[in-house]
Amino acid sequence: MSEPISNGKLEVVGVGPGDPELMTLKAARLIEAADVIAYPTNSDGQSFARDIAASHLSEQVEIGFYLPMRTERAPAQIAYEGACGKIAAELDAGRAVVLLCEGDPFFYGSAMYVFARLAETYPVSVTPGISSLTACAAAIGRPLASRSDVLSVIPATLDEDRLREAISKADSMAIIKVGRYFSKVCHILEELGRAQQAVVIESATLNAERISLLDGFAEDERPYFSTILVGPTTESFVRLPGAKLS
Amino acid sequence: MSEPISNGKLEVVGVGPGDPELMTLKAARLIEAADVIAYPTNSDGQSFARDIAASHLSEQVEIGFYLPMRTERAPAQIAYEGACGKIAAELDAGRAVVLLCEGDPFFYGSAMYVFARLAETYPVSVTPGISSLTACAAAIGRPLASRSDVLSVIPATLDEDRLREAISKADSMAIIKVGRYFSKVCHILEELGRAQQAVVIESATLNAERISLLDGFAEDERPYFSTILVGPTTESFVRLPGAKLS
Repeated sequence: MSEPISNGKLEVVGVGPGDPELMTLKAARLIEAADVIAYPTNSDGQSFARDIAASHLSEQVEIGFYLPMRTERAPAQIAYEGACGKIAAELDAGRAVVLLCEGDPFFYGSAMYVFARLAETYPVSVTPGISSLTACAAAIGRPLASRSDVLSVIPATLDEDRLREAISKADSMAIIKVGRYFSKVCHILEELGRAQQAVVIESATLNAERISLLDGFAEDERPYFSTILVGPTTESFVRLPGAKLS
Repeated sequence: MSEPISNGKLEVVGVGPGDPELMTLKAARLIEAADVIAYPTNSDGQSFARDIAASHLSEQVEIGFYLPMRTERAPAQIAYEGACGKIAAELDAGRAVVLLCEGDPFFYGSAMYVFARLAETYPVSVTPGISSLTACAAAIGRPLASRSDVLSVIPATLDEDRLREAISKADSMAIIKVGRYFSKVCHILEELGRAQQAVVIESATLNAERISLLDGFAEDERPYFSTILVGPTTESFVRLPGAKLS
């Protein structure tokens, strides 16, 4: 399955959760072989996806496109249209283009919108990446799910009623996109008696990685860039600061 | 976060879903640097995890341990005890040991039992791998989940009532461990009106990879080594044989 990179084709490539070593061999090969590298940036022109892949970049042409975060849908759509136009022009010129995506492209990623537009016209392949989900489970030393557990992946962006419903129905769960919704999530987990099984992972796989029990947060403290994993019952082996596990 | 490999430490390493290029750079480095490589085998001594990692093996000592599949719990427990004993002896002798795991170690993997036992005594780290989940989504060109979808990961090994309940509550879902439970899963998806949104992925990322609509299976046909992804509604972009997407 290790096809060479093709002219006029778009490769949508997951670069993993943050640690550059958690890129796949395939991602590294495709990025190094590409003519053009595209990636989303914030309003300052910085790109987490590019940072992860940086050591594989050299002579490639780079296309950064500003992607507004957490805003109403319209501005993001305009950004996607712009990015698609630039990428299409490179593909029309017969260049091999790689689109970099944090984590995995099809796990709640924004690359799917670019994919949906361009796949109608151009050949496109997707290379999966390590998602924050499995990276967080590895970090805390606790399985995401095992045996016949149902695992629910729940975006904290749900409105409060739907979030409560989803959490109340779940066995094992991963709550993603926590960001500014931390208080809402905490409140519901406490209300439903699941807070004791919850572990907060911030900046997974980066030097700034921090692992805490949900209970460990001060009233006014907020985690940054975090995922909350909640075990099914009272699963035991969780790696916490000061634990024997190295 | 790229620590060197340590003597007397166990590295539990996910090697991804099958394509050797979907191993991470970190997995390749740890495997190449290890003194000892341990992996589960079938009753013929064959190991899918070892096959995936084969090109990174040279002088390492190898420990294959036979792991009975889909049987009652007791025989597997005995196999784990045996594997743990052998691995512990290597760690006691100060060797760097890597345990290979298909997919991701903590996503319904069996490595968690070895981890749970040995982490009480020895330093252990876990390196996440690409799970079959994101590999399957990449293969069919359809997001696993997006925006505020809740994603349910449902093992087909659940008994029929619990399986029906889990499927009936789910928006987007990935049904894993399908194997010999294919008929049961099909029946429930049809009963609940979700069969039209279901795609079957066999041998994801391998040369034998095959993608079919659930409807495409003949009455007596059974998929091999498969995952079933079910979209939330009528998501459009699915890559099927003969589709324009390359």
